[in-house]
Amino acid sequence: MPSPADDRRYMAAAIALSGRGRGLSTPNPNVGCLIVKASPDGGRHIVGRGWTQKGGRPHAEAQALEQAMDRARGATAYVTLEPCFHLSPRGPRCADLMARAGVARVVIALRDPDPRTDGQGAAWLRDRGIAVEMGLMAQEAAGAMAGFVLRQTLGRPHVTLKLGVSIDGRIALKDGASRWITGPDARAHAHMERARHDAILVGGGTLRADAPRLDVRLRGLEDRSPRRLLLSRKDAPKGWDRIGAPEEIAALQRVDHLLVEGGAETAAVFLRADLVDRLMLYRAPIIVGAGLAGIGDIGLAELAQAHGRWRMTDVRALGVDRLEVYERVRSA
Amino acid sequence: MPSPADDRRYMAAAIALSGRGRGLSTPNPNVGCLIVKASPDGGRHIVGRGWTQKGGRPHAEAQALEQAMDRARGATAYVTLEPCFHLSPRGPRCADLMARAGVARVVIALRDPDPRTDGQGAAWLRDRGIAVEMGLMAQEAAGAMAGFVLRQTLGRPHVTLKLGVSIDGRIALKDGASRWITGPDARAHAHMERARHDAILVGGGTLRADAPRLDVRLRGLEDRSPRRLLLSRKDAPKGWDRIGAPEEIAALQRVDHLLVEGGAETAAVFLRADLVDRLMLYRAPIIVGAGLAGIGDIGLAELAQAHGRWRMTDVRALGVDRLEVYERVRSA
Repeated sequence: MPSPADDRRYMAAAIALSGRGRGLSTPNPNVGCLIVKASPDGGRHIVGRGWTQKGGRPHAEAQALEQAMDRARGATAYVTLEPCFHLSPRGPRCADLMARAGVARVVIALRDPDPRTDGQGAAWLRDRGIAVEMGLMAQEAAGAMAGFVLRQTLGRPHVTLKLGVSIDGRIALKDGASRWITGPDARAHAHMERARHDAILVGGGTLRADAPRLDVRLRGLEDRSPRRLLLSRKDAPKGWDRIGAPEEIAALQRVDHLLVEGGAETAAVFLRADLVDRLMLYRAPIIVGAGLAGIGDIGLAELAQAHGRWRMTDVRALGVDRLEVYERVRSA
Repeated sequence: MPSPADDRRYMAAAIALSGRGRGLSTPNPNVGCLIVKASPDGGRHIVGRGWTQKGGRPHAEAQALEQAMDRARGATAYVTLEPCFHLSPRGPRCADLMARAGVARVVIALRDPDPRTDGQGAAWLRDRGIAVEMGLMAQEAAGAMAGFVLRQTLGRPHVTLKLGVSIDGRIALKDGASRWITGPDARAHAHMERARHDAILVGGGTLRADAPRLDVRLRGLEDRSPRRLLLSRKDAPKGWDRIGAPEEIAALQRVDHLLVEGGAETAAVFLRADLVDRLMLYRAPIIVGAGLAGIGDIGLAELAQAHGRWRMTDVRALGVDRLEVYERVRSA
């Protein structure tokens, strides 16, 4: 039997796998699954790996089980979300698949908040004599499937606001020139991040000023360019969908992860509506001085109100630039 | 004999000691000195520690030797700057002091650029049969004595620009409210940093708006409040000295380390004149949106000109805030 530390390591690997489906798996959550089999000599081997595929099928568990074949018998499965139990014309119930494959133990990070499963998947497995543990690294798993979780809890997608800024928070010179604040490593990372989102949104001013393509210009990921959204009161050009206000993101179909790329007024409108869950700042080691600010008027009346809302959760070097990630602190 | 790794460790300790005199030792450089004696059992002991005292005397070496007494005989001395050789009515020549104390070996970080010593201190020691090594961690030592080095090379003090900013680079709300951007840990650190400078400068706008005391409000450091300078065309109030332009800092007597604390226009004027060597940004995890920028117009015509000038050299957490230190990259 794996130790608790082993369990955490395998679950961390399953959570990492789940990231591969982010921006692809809607309308299904981007789940990750790992199947680990003890060998006769006492070692352990990963016999199956899966993550929810494009459009939501196959599910992570189905993919991992197919890879494991009969080696799944007596194995431990690590899943980032409770295996589904609801009947669907699109595929089998994963809880049933697992039971039939003969896994001996299922370790689950997050209970499925979808009322069609919501504990029934785990119960089904337990009823068939399978050891089930739920809650391991639930927070980390929820972070990796943030869009799905927010859809279930707040009824809207997860929103990331991305900015490329200078030390002093500028995104462009006064004349609008923004090429380039950040360097090639940061820009490549930002393109990769696009591929992890279902849709990208900019405001009308950015569309007119920069005519951004918002595509993923990375070899092998060209087909991962997300849907393009415009926040505007006017009609959107061909190839774009329009929303008139930030709150309308709730009604967007098949958008669990939304990336807001600017400009300052669009950023401010989303922040004012408290509809930003994550900030990704690509910060260049340059001073711009007078120039365009990255974030417009968010309606802050007192400094005290600004505190306690954001927590830095990651920072990393990208060439000479740095990526700073902040997440919105929300009381549970 | 200490290994090269030991030598580095002892020199690093001497450099750390030199920091204690920063902001105090003018008109003399803030040197650090460590004397290390081998004991009969093969171990080694630090028998003397010194740093240049307030007003420049005693020198670090004199203080360390006085502490070591006859244990200095046969010992190794680590000094961040070449021991002085010039005659002064204010105290003895450190090179001579060391030779007479009987140290066997002197490890020096930086050769003294002052023409009154400039290699002669080391020569004096060598002529007396003392092993002398020069250059170990010279760059680190130069950084710790940055004000002295710049006085010798560029004829002006070392200038640090300090800002307390939000994620988006704001130092206040639109109405000027800036209490508080950063928290108590960051503010205490900023007060400690004041004590490490010979003078603090603000612009006329900041003086009128905030009437800052610019003192060191930390227990035990109250007497370390530096001299107050005003950048203004008008007369300075009582207790302040005035300069009319950034370039005038070169003429300031006994100011090797200058701290510029704002506001945005003063920061911009110093940056425009390329008279900022270090940026210390205390960054709070808050978004302000529309508000006052920390840095005004620095006359940047193209983004390309902004690159390659700043390098992040340190970052640390201070409560929920972070201190980011950038240093000006200057080709040698």
